[in-house]
Amino acid sequence: MIARHVRKLEAYVPGEQPRARGVVKLNTNENPYPPSPACAGVLKHFSLDLLRRYPDPSFCALRDALAKLNDADPDCVFIGNGSDEVLSIAARAFVEDDESIGSLDPSYSLYKTLAAIRDVKWIGAKNLSTRIAPKTSLFLLTNPNAPTGEFREPSEIAAFAKRFRGVLVVDEAYADFARANCMSLAVAPTNRNIIVMRTFSKSYSLAGLRVGYCVGPKNLIDAMYKVKDSYNVDAVAQAVALAAVKDQAWMRTNVAKVVRTRARFVTALEKRGWNVMPSESNFVFARPPARENAADLFAWLRSKNIFVRYFPGPKTGDRLRITIGTDGQMKALLNAIDDRFCE
Amino acid sequence: MIARHVRKLEAYVPGEQPRARGVVKLNTNENPYPPSPACAGVLKHFSLDLLRRYPDPSFCALRDALAKLNDADPDCVFIGNGSDEVLSIAARAFVEDDESIGSLDPSYSLYKTLAAIRDVKWIGAKNLSTRIAPKTSLFLLTNPNAPTGEFREPSEIAAFAKRFRGVLVVDEAYADFARANCMSLAVAPTNRNIIVMRTFSKSYSLAGLRVGYCVGPKNLIDAMYKVKDSYNVDAVAQAVALAAVKDQAWMRTNVAKVVRTRARFVTALEKRGWNVMPSESNFVFARPPARENAADLFAWLRSKNIFVRYFPGPKTGDRLRITIGTDGQMKALLNAIDDRFCE
Repeated sequence: MIARHVRKLEAYVPGEQPRARGVVKLNTNENPYPPSPACAGVLKHFSLDLLRRYPDPSFCALRDALAKLNDADPDCVFIGNGSDEVLSIAARAFVEDDESIGSLDPSYSLYKTLAAIRDVKWIGAKNLSTRIAPKTSLFLLTNPNAPTGEFREPSEIAAFAKRFRGVLVVDEAYADFARANCMSLAVAPTNRNIIVMRTFSKSYSLAGLRVGYCVGPKNLIDAMYKVKDSYNVDAVAQAVALAAVKDQAWMRTNVAKVVRTRARFVTALEKRGWNVMPSESNFVFARPPARENAADLFAWLRSKNIFVRYFPGPKTGDRLRITIGTDGQMKALLNAIDDRFCE
Repeated sequence: MIARHVRKLEAYVPGEQPRARGVVKLNTNENPYPPSPACAGVLKHFSLDLLRRYPDPSFCALRDALAKLNDADPDCVFIGNGSDEVLSIAARAFVEDDESIGSLDPSYSLYKTLAAIRDVKWIGAKNLSTRIAPKTSLFLLTNPNAPTGEFREPSEIAAFAKRFRGVLVVDEAYADFARANCMSLAVAPTNRNIIVMRTFSKSYSLAGLRVGYCVGPKNLIDAMYKVKDSYNVDAVAQAVALAAVKDQAWMRTNVAKVVRTRARFVTALEKRGWNVMPSESNFVFARPPARENAADLFAWLRSKNIFVRYFPGPKTGDRLRITIGTDGQMKALLNAIDDRFCE
């Protein structure tokens, strides 16, 4: 009774969400700072009458605010229950059964699972100059990339999009932590195949809420609306995300703090002999010194209640992905690393 | 770039969500009474730290409460972003590309759209004794049915499930308003193919929140977990729904009020010459007297700021689906009908 491809599917395993107190949680790229106090205000005064009624299926208020923020036409904005849902809808709207989904390798490991759920092939590309098979109708490009943190220039991405015949989704989950982004490509009137995706989970500190959105050509956005559930973004999420959008200063301040901590943390790791890939995101992908095995260190840190992320495999298994938290959290991690070295 | 079946897809059109004040809104089967005050309490004191972090991907607290409520194993419970998402996941987990989705005709019109989004055939059955084609691997059965309100006995549904080779999802969105339900079939240890689905949108007055769930055999539920997005139910929705589940008395009181109003309203319509199908839900499906055309009446009521639902087509076009609101709202509707007759 279960579809064949689902039977053999290996589910995507998200990072652990430990609930214990005292955990230093640097494993799922959450923002260490709380969202705008305006979000708390919305929750506090949320009308029960709005809970009782269905939400706006076209999330107009939030959509209009996001359109304004990004100089886009409101009809070119789509909002999902987290960018996970935006991705899943793209996989259903832009891929035929005999086509494939491409992404860089390594990149966000969910992309591979998405292709498996959609029951199509996943194609890993080493870089953007790799020749992309003509049957690849959707390419998912995280920029800055995860788990590496690596940033690609918008000009390189624009050139790739020009060559590519399918839909390119640029997953800019971490773009607020980077020096540039591709939004101007998405809103350009000549754009035919670039969709830029953003999330409220990182820079806006709203991972608990599940709001992601994307901007792209109207015909592609229309197709996504057709595939979505009627009321895919709930009334609370619409209202709280809107409050967050309106408080850009709060978001920018938190992002600046994370970026400063990132610089200090990279220096501290390098001093200790780590190799850190240049990062423009809210995490670093770092290889411990030769005496240290990444998998062992991951497990040991976990035993000390410090959670980072480890991705086994030939391309990622020698490094740890470490979220940038507060200065205090990074200090706790560095202290633990130093302790281990002295043990 | 857009998949062929999406290009030709006609999107499901949900009932209007007018925002103006003074509207008598009887078109989308919302509960006229607010959710439990405990829900307001949860929102008021919701920790910003929980917004900052990803929600529990397995929604354990809510899942355990729903398991307990229904005498089910927690591993046999799945929760979605509204039952819309539960349905969409079922369509992806239980249907191969060359199989089909069945439902009664008429029934919830979304089912047809779901099949179109999944790019498989939709098969309409007149009743449960119709022979179901062997390629139909998923049957979606609303009980009480929508838009008719008609109730089928669990014994009839059990007999159908026994004959049926695929997965039967019994969509019990309205079951709390009915005299019986199929949950005991879903939790029976011998059950191999019945999944019972419930929603927080109707009896719990939480349509704005988007929480639906289902209970069924563990192997089928496991398959649904594999297909879902990692964090498909947000932290606020998990917490508010949990508060609602814990306040069964509040829900039961509201349901009893709706059921009483339903009885009075049916009598009032029948007195005015309407034909009302027996309803065990929070709406009625009623045919106006011969002098009155349902489509015209729908439009006229709308012009008076009274919203009901009209489904064109040979099987539904002679009736209106009217949500049961407060006594005051039903009175306003009846007054309008009387006014029109006198005009």
